[in-house]
Amino acid sequence: MIPVAIVGAAGYAGIELTRLLLGHPSFKPVCVTSAADAGKRVNELYPGLSGTNLVFEAPDAAAIAGRAQVAFLAVPHTAAIAMTPVLLDAGVTVVDCSADFRLRDPDVYAAWYGVEHGARDLLGEAVYGLPELWRAALPGARLVACPGCYPTATLLASAPAVRAGVVTSGRVIADAISGVSGAGRGATATTHFVSVAESVAAYKVGAHRHTPEIAQGLADLGLRNPAVVFTPHLAPLSRGLLSTVYLEVSPGLSVDDAYALYRDAYADEAFVTVCEPGMQPATGHVRGSNRAHVGVVLDTASRTLIATCAIDNLVKGAAGQAVQCANIALGLPEAAGLAAPAPIV
Amino acid sequence: MIPVAIVGAAGYAGIELTRLLLGHPSFKPVCVTSAADAGKRVNELYPGLSGTNLVFEAPDAAAIAGRAQVAFLAVPHTAAIAMTPVLLDAGVTVVDCSADFRLRDPDVYAAWYGVEHGARDLLGEAVYGLPELWRAALPGARLVACPGCYPTATLLASAPAVRAGVVTSGRVIADAISGVSGAGRGATATTHFVSVAESVAAYKVGAHRHTPEIAQGLADLGLRNPAVVFTPHLAPLSRGLLSTVYLEVSPGLSVDDAYALYRDAYADEAFVTVCEPGMQPATGHVRGSNRAHVGVVLDTASRTLIATCAIDNLVKGAAGQAVQCANIALGLPEAAGLAAPAPIV
Amino acid sequence: MIPVAIVGAAGYAGIELTRLLLGHPSFKPVCVTSAADAGKRVNELYPGLSGTNLVFEAPDAAAIAGRAQVAFLAVPHTAAIAMTPVLLDAGVTVVDCSADFRLRDPDVYAAWYGVEHGARDLLGEAVYGLPELWRAALPGARLVACPGCYPTATLLASAPAVRAGVVTSGRVIADAISGVSGAGRGATATTHFVSVAESVAAYKVGAHRHTPEIAQGLADLGLRNPAVVFTPHLAPLSRGLLSTVYLEVSPGLSVDDAYALYRDAYADEAFVTVCEPGMQPATGHVRGSNRAHVGVVLDTASRTLIATCAIDNLVKGAAGQAVQCANIALGLPEAAGLAAPAPIV
Amino acid sequence: MIPVAIVGAAGYAGIELTRLLLGHPSFKPVCVTSAADAGKRVNELYPGLSGTNLVFEAPDAAAIAGRAQVAFLAVPHTAAIAMTPVLLDAGVTVVDCSADFRLRDPDVYAAWYGVEHGARDLLGEAVYGLPELWRAALPGARLVACPGCYPTATLLASAPAVRAGVVTSGRVIADAISGVSGAGRGATATTHFVSVAESVAAYKVGAHRHTPEIAQGLADLGLRNPAVVFTPHLAPLSRGLLSTVYLEVSPGLSVDDAYALYRDAYADEAFVTVCEPGMQPATGHVRGSNRAHVGVVLDTASRTLIATCAIDNLVKGAAGQAVQCANIALGLPEAAGLAAPAPIV
Repeated sequence: MIPVAIVGAAGYAGIELTRLLLGHPSFKPVCVTSAADAGKRVNELYPGLSGTNLVFEAPDAAAIAGRAQVAFLAVPHTAAIAMTPVLLDAGVTVVDCSADFRLRDPDVYAAWYGVEHGARDLLGEAVYGLPELWRAALPGARLVACPGCYPTATLLASAPAVRAGVVTSGRVIADAISGVSGAGRGATATTHFVSVAESVAAYKVGAHRHTPEIAQGLADLGLRNPAVVFTPHLAPLSRGLLSTVYLEVSPGLSVDDAYALYRDAYADEAFVTVCEPGMQPATGHVRGSNRAHVGVVLDTASRTLIATCAIDNLVKGAAGQAVQCANIALGLPEAAGLAAPAPIV
Repeated sequence: MIPVAIVGAAGYAGIELTRLLLGHPSFKPVCVTSAADAGKRVNELYPGLSGTNLVFEAPDAAAIAGRAQVAFLAVPHTAAIAMTPVLLDAGVTVVDCSADFRLRDPDVYAAWYGVEHGARDLLGEAVYGLPELWRAALPGARLVACPGCYPTATLLASAPAVRAGVVTSGRVIADAISGVSGAGRGATATTHFVSVAESVAAYKVGAHRHTPEIAQGLADLGLRNPAVVFTPHLAPLSRGLLSTVYLEVSPGLSVDDAYALYRDAYADEAFVTVCEPGMQPATGHVRGSNRAHVGVVLDTASRTLIATCAIDNLVKGAAGQAVQCANIALGLPEAAGLAAPAPIV
Repeated sequence: MIPVAIVGAAGYAGIELTRLLLGHPSFKPVCVTSAADAGKRVNELYPGLSGTNLVFEAPDAAAIAGRAQVAFLAVPHTAAIAMTPVLLDAGVTVVDCSADFRLRDPDVYAAWYGVEHGARDLLGEAVYGLPELWRAALPGARLVACPGCYPTATLLASAPAVRAGVVTSGRVIADAISGVSGAGRGATATTHFVSVAESVAAYKVGAHRHTPEIAQGLADLGLRNPAVVFTPHLAPLSRGLLSTVYLEVSPGLSVDDAYALYRDAYADEAFVTVCEPGMQPATGHVRGSNRAHVGVVLDTASRTLIATCAIDNLVKGAAGQAVQCANIALGLPEAAGLAAPAPIV
Repeated sequence: MIPVAIVGAAGYAGIELTRLLLGHPSFKPVCVTSAADAGKRVNELYPGLSGTNLVFEAPDAAAIAGRAQVAFLAVPHTAAIAMTPVLLDAGVTVVDCSADFRLRDPDVYAAWYGVEHGARDLLGEAVYGLPELWRAALPGARLVACPGCYPTATLLASAPAVRAGVVTSGRVIADAISGVSGAGRGATATTHFVSVAESVAAYKVGAHRHTPEIAQGLADLGLRNPAVVFTPHLAPLSRGLLSTVYLEVSPGLSVDDAYALYRDAYADEAFVTVCEPGMQPATGHVRGSNRAHVGVVLDTASRTLIATCAIDNLVKGAAGQAVQCANIALGLPEAAGLAAPAPIV
């Protein structure tokens, strides 16, 4: 068993990593850290993990380096920048779920995150961990930057069309809906049950930090001059994320062509299902799993491809994808620890 | 008190009409009909209306005509076509919440609803009942066609920009989220709690019947060659509808201009609030009320105006707007019976 | 219009009081206070109340006394004790939604609230404001102690049987379920959407502060040696409270007798509906209203009467009952401002 | 791999069995049946199970007998009676999730289910499958009657106190709350999202068919003259069941004794956790898992033990427990296929 650490394990992504890694056939969590909850048992804070005796420790990169071969980081941005160099120097593979190594251009990072990037030299080495789109770079990677939840769904929804060259405009509209766990474990007016239940609203319209990450991904897929209009919404569910993407496409594209593009692009992917024509993905269908369901509809009148992608924001949008990337990086079977069907009703 | 009938009163829009009209200062429900539930007491089917002794009757246009001065129709499409001529001939004012008289072009009706329109001669007389946009036609109207819930929110979100002439493309993307009451009272796999809870999904993508109604409304507002891409989503809430509309606008439009357009357009409207810059409408803020909250954000990079509108699909999106239209049609104060603040937490 | 103040208006009970009083025919809110949110507009914090221009002020009993004829207190316990003498001295009628004046015995107060009662002399004057059970004391009352939400539902469920003398044991089990608004507006791990959604749990088992209040009420109704076992549960809803009460009854009581007792007890009550045999109250049927629905089932084998009562914890369980009490205290129609049917689906 | 069939696989318990068995290390589903959905792919009806190619077949006991070594029945009562003899005769082990073989007395069955029991001769052989309480009878069993969801939680909550002989009265009150999946997949007015959301209510008060099953179990545990008062409630969650049980206990029992009784009783149980004093089980903590969390509080004043037990009604309350029983019956590790931690936020 490969000893692993989860840093920031008390947050939602962190505890989901802990859950998945406790059930992983090759990884063994030996260290879970939390600055705020150090000293507490994991099953005290999360009674659902009653089967473990792990105790949250204060985060300490040097201590982690001595015990773990892989470190999964589920920390706020800038915290990963602070910790990663120490871990890499000690030979630890870093799988980072924060935003710190996703954007290759440190100026874009500075513009959107409001702080200079403190580890520019590592940006070239970081591998963007969305295996279905950029798998080749992952084997042997020392530093994986796991995508944001919105970019994961949006890029999976966009990629087949963009790569096929049928998208004729860089103006891409991504309209997405997320569950509340995406807002984190912090108790705020926004996450209070009474505020969330029976209400939906957009937030950070035109200003969400995942916007440049989506643009970077679309450019990497071959889209020229991407101009991303991204509107996230909050809905009353704990988990789940749906991105509905509007792509302007060539007049020659037929409905059958569009579907075939998507079906073929993901035909060999274990974690992606393209819904048959007439069907639409639902976040409930992927709840608790590392799967992505993708739907595609062509509105011929307006030459608009409407591609939808449903994921569980905490699994394929965070912890599950991190495990998937770690599996590939270390040469394990890609689906190790991720194959069990999640509850579906 | 003006005697009124509610036809189709056992459905969600119908029972909401009943609730509002029971509290109305000038209308008095004298007849509520339901084909399926005739003979049952209203408070047996809806124990929340414990204060009334009304009993559902079988629908009978002639019988209604003899007792009511106004008939509110909350029936499936085609049913309103069948009943309206009888009611109008008897001098009854008809306020129709179905789709039957919304589309002025009967060929468009036939194309989207799959049936020839059986009362083409009345289409010219029907007044589209969205008071904030087309109030002038309502006083004295004999036949009001109340808008669909999605068109109501989408047109309120679009109107100020379209009327100001700053929208440069007919390609309008409307991405909307609705609560489950919009799917009606029918118990189906789709409306089962277990299917709905903790899930969101798009449905009828590019094929929803409200699409041509939105297009007709945008054209009426002055948009050339509207090509509407409309994607409704279902979310786990009972009531509430949010439409997020993407409009391509002139390069000259500034952020301040955009906000001013909206603020000014609705400055005198009792039921519309334009959220201050930085704020977004939430359906929870209008739950149970006839209000619409509108938000506007300009993405200058892509010249996209992102306008959002939140309503309660059963009130401003159906029953409340019908009452508002009836008030205007009959010369009553526009807000009569609609002013009480709804529960807000 | 009678000028009134709402003290602690930014909390859930306080804002519900504000909503109801803004729609009241005889009361006019002239002052809303909030220590934490002083200076903010009400409609900034609660955009659903978009129709008002009220601004939260810092609480100041003397200032309130100069402007309001009635003060509704929706403050934490001990805060009402501090403020009430000043208000009463100035001739202001105090309608207190806190726990401060509910328990007549200051030693019981001290035992359960962990602090000596600072206004013992007022306890004799305070009128317990549950009109359906103790209406006679309310007209002209200067100080009304509004019941807790759990006691309201539990006592309404118990009263007909207890008063009829058919309850044979003081051991009363009250098992109740509440929505999250009962936990207040504070954002905590307990009120986070992700903690609440899709989960139910008991809390404060055998230790909830409403226990002695229920016992006092049962004794007042005539039960000897009440020994209350009270278990509140939290369920994923914003509003609503259901209390299921188990009473040991005389062998002679028949099913028909039991129902008749309840039907007759509440026959003249505008706000209480006794469900017909075979029907059960649901909190959804009273959501947003001041109504209580009561159900009664007799298990003859075990001689147990199972009485259930559903209320909206923020209305009949707090703000609505306070308005009802104020109406009676000031000689207004009891249902003034409380009659509009609430949304029922 | 042992070939197994799931009969009635399209219902909620059936599809949960399918999910669990698809991930089981020793069982392999070779046949899933559904009378209503025969011919449909499993992943068409339940897109969340996208990884399987199973197709629902029409139920046919003879055909199942030829292919499966174990048959899991998730069918309505009486259907299991019809099918079981055929399966047993063919040497198939039957694990029945229906009510058909739970009650040992066929007259009690007839009284509560309204039909004569058609396989009385098998009642003596059926083993009641609640391993934590009656494990010894399971190894080698040919016919397992899996308990109902409410009896599972209620008996787990009651057993330590009853077995210890500290319960002094046969009058046991069980007040329980269940999620909507317990009502099955049928789309009805009761399961419509709009009926369920934001509401709680009791149902079948004093008349639920699990009542005699709870009484039989309590008697088996040693309680004299059990008189069970059982009140189920429906709350707005998909999965999860909490039973709160009130037991009258000996005056000599101390708080520490009570806790020790429970802690010791379940100390060696892999699937049961006794919450530490001051903590309470929440259904969210066991969602998707086969675990039961038990809490115990002693109200010394009224000598009432308040024991609570949270389970997932579809797992420990149905499918998971069936797999656990099958594991024991066939000599497999008891936790096989049930150990993966479920999503916990």
